[in-house]
Amino acid sequence: MDELAFHRWLRSEWPDKPGMLGIGDDAAALCCGPVTVVCTDSVAEGTHFVSGTDPVLIGRKAVARNLSDLAAMGAEPLGALVALILPRACPDALPQKIMRGCRQELEKTGADIVGGDTTTHEGGIVVNVTLLGRPMGERVIRRDGARPGDVLAVTGALGGSGQGRHLAIAPRLAAARELVQLGPPSAMMDVSDGLLLDLQRLVDASHCGFELDAALIPVHADAVALPGDPLERALSDGEDFELIVALPAERWAHLEGAWSRTIPLTRIGSVTTTGQRILRAGAAWWPGSTGHVHR
Amino acid sequence: MDELAFHRWLRSEWPDKPGMLGIGDDAAALCCGPVTVVCTDSVAEGTHFVSGTDPVLIGRKAVARNLSDLAAMGAEPLGALVALILPRACPDALPQKIMRGCRQELEKTGADIVGGDTTTHEGGIVVNVTLLGRPMGERVIRRDGARPGDVLAVTGALGGSGQGRHLAIAPRLAAARELVQLGPPSAMMDVSDGLLLDLQRLVDASHCGFELDAALIPVHADAVALPGDPLERALSDGEDFELIVALPAERWAHLEGAWSRTIPLTRIGSVTTTGQRILRAGAAWWPGSTGHVHR
Repeated sequence: MDELAFHRWLRSEWPDKPGMLGIGDDAAALCCGPVTVVCTDSVAEGTHFVSGTDPVLIGRKAVARNLSDLAAMGAEPLGALVALILPRACPDALPQKIMRGCRQELEKTGADIVGGDTTTHEGGIVVNVTLLGRPMGERVIRRDGARPGDVLAVTGALGGSGQGRHLAIAPRLAAARELVQLGPPSAMMDVSDGLLLDLQRLVDASHCGFELDAALIPVHADAVALPGDPLERALSDGEDFELIVALPAERWAHLEGAWSRTIPLTRIGSVTTTGQRILRAGAAWWPGSTGHVHR
Repeated sequence: MDELAFHRWLRSEWPDKPGMLGIGDDAAALCCGPVTVVCTDSVAEGTHFVSGTDPVLIGRKAVARNLSDLAAMGAEPLGALVALILPRACPDALPQKIMRGCRQELEKTGADIVGGDTTTHEGGIVVNVTLLGRPMGERVIRRDGARPGDVLAVTGALGGSGQGRHLAIAPRLAAARELVQLGPPSAMMDVSDGLLLDLQRLVDASHCGFELDAALIPVHADAVALPGDPLERALSDGEDFELIVALPAERWAHLEGAWSRTIPLTRIGSVTTTGQRILRAGAAWWPGSTGHVHR
């Protein structure tokens, strides 16, 4: 399929909607409200998926990673731009399959594709997605708002996402919505590079420390099935796309009681004034194989 | 420079500004007003620039192509997201140089980088830029608004951009602003793939035809310096990033008289009800070497 035919297909599949100028012009135009929340993220062959991966799943992953970023800001998705950078020789149906995957993931949320770009190059498949949205509540939830004494909690279970879960991400938009409604967290972010590294980013941004109780960390069955220490995997494997949440300790009991989502929200530790500590079997412990620096 | 060091550098170079949450969180947040105009565009090594191109120029080109798209919509830039997809082994300073190039191009417009993403892959350098903006006037200028009888005009001169101009794009934001102020065009788009192909897109979207007067088409000196028919180059070379404008014929005399920009705005033909015609030396003519289909 040549470029003109692909563009015709795009315009027939994605006609303009009321109040929105979508695919087919130099840019898209949409009503986001006073504050636009926006993120961008790329997936590349050999880095985020192996060669031969179903292109529908590539599209879904490219969108889902961005949905997870918006969820972590306490923001709802409104529209996506999909930029395809494809090998010069690729199967005719490849771009459409990627676009279908993007749409499948978006339409669960009520959002859709509003624009994009396609080019070719000498490398493998690269899909970049930019997602626009608006805050779920009165403001976005930043990662720099954690305060000493805050409870630290995570959604779901961590580790072993390479077993296949990294291609079937479940962005935590509904959990984020409930967190915002029950009184917004002090800080929130998603786990893309592993709980430990991402938690370090959150407390660094907030100028605080943390203490984790190893026994409380929800380890995914996928991590247990793999060789190595499942706890280390839960701390370091990454691509979990769960939410890390910090919130005032006095609100924890109410939140835990009111929580209505199927996905669990688990207390794993607390924010401290300084330092980074993990308690395991009553003693200070730090993973040996992660490459993360213990400060 | 490792990823954490690069992120520290980004945060120190791009601190948050009032009313804007920029680099360093899962997403950016900015105030665009009621309508957000947004476009995305990628440049890839071997396709949009040759290997060894100064990374500052790569960043500038990646941003400038998007600025041209916003100008073509009659929209002002507000903020950019820069997604870098880089070779696994690349010089330490490469990402910073690309970011500096992006900033150089943006800061002429008063906008800046608000977010982005960095990853590595097995291919060459790919830079994707997403640009957010707002309409300069009451509404965006679409490409589907041309009407039979409209004057067709272009800014600047066309052809031969491969001589070097494709790396030193001058996005026509000021010209777009003046066009919007003097009474918005019926339709507008930018010339990225060559005047003829892009004009075909404009009239197709508008369900019209066109007639061009070859003698009026402004041919760039770069096209004259190259082998081949300079007129064919002006029609087909592409990467000119000038504006194609359609506007009601009765407004042309006023616009021509009031035009205050240094860059010329040249009448090249008119919109017709149907068909696509070029008159050259008094006879119908069509370029032979462009690969474009004459309909």
